[in-house]
Amino acid sequence: MSTGPVIEGIVETILYADDLPRAVAFYREVLGLRPMGGDGRRFQAFNAGGRQALLIFQRGATLEPLALPGGGVIPAHDGRGPHHLGLAITHDAYGPWVERLRAAGVAIESEVIWERGSRSVYFRDSEGNALELVTPGLWPNY
Amino acid sequence: MSTGPVIEGIVETILYADDLPRAVAFYREVLGLRPMGGDGRRFQAFNAGGRQALLIFQRGATLEPLALPGGGVIPAHDGRGPHHLGLAITHDAYGPWVERLRAAGVAIESEVIWERGSRSVYFRDSEGNALELVTPGLWPNY
Repeated sequence: MSTGPVIEGIVETILYADDLPRAVAFYREVLGLRPMGGDGRRFQAFNAGGRQALLIFQRGATLEPLALPGGGVIPAHDGRGPHHLGLAITHDAYGPWVERLRAAGVAIESEVIWERGSRSVYFRDSEGNALELVTPGLWPNY
Repeated sequence: MSTGPVIEGIVETILYADDLPRAVAFYREVLGLRPMGGDGRRFQAFNAGGRQALLIFQRGATLEPLALPGGGVIPAHDGRGPHHLGLAITHDAYGPWVERLRAAGVAIESEVIWERGSRSVYFRDSEGNALELVTPGLWPNY
């Protein structure tokens, strides 16, 4: 397999929301992510940094394949949580992020200091998903 | 919010598997991802390129919070699909990837050519999740 085509990275990470407008407000206002596409009813895309997108779909809105005007079909998908997602922050931003979450009324569910010095803070998004903000030093490539 | 701390990217993208060893085999052998951590029973981490990890959890194994030996707790999470995930490939790798999937016996569910020339091929992983391999030109940042 070493000479075959390769995966360059993850472009689209997906979450599903019971209430898409509520989730959009959370990711924009609490986490500061920038919307970059989507119709706000079926899904909303956010710029998650680098070449990455976070796509949030209205739960139940993608249970059927979607025929595209230009041809082709997006297959059916859907999900139930509480899902999990880990977002990168710098070491210097750790304290300010904990403060920002508290100021926004978000309950801190857990804080962890990992073996190699990485720190994680866990909390729930508006849909109950387990979010983690994590500083470098957790994985061999992060 | 423009002066507050920022999200740098997505570090951990998560999927859940009914059969973790089966999923690990799929992501290693069909997609060529490199394992980089995990116990193979509760979860397996893959290097997904750059600073990104794909974490696959055994469904049902994370329904309770996990107390860590070093202190701290990983909150409960879990998920049901069929979830969706988009992986980056180069334009040149598109044809070889379609061939590789077919050679591995993976059914191609759909192919799409997007407005700006990006191409997507959709198929299912071993757990029924809707995977997409997508070439650049789909999002403002990809």
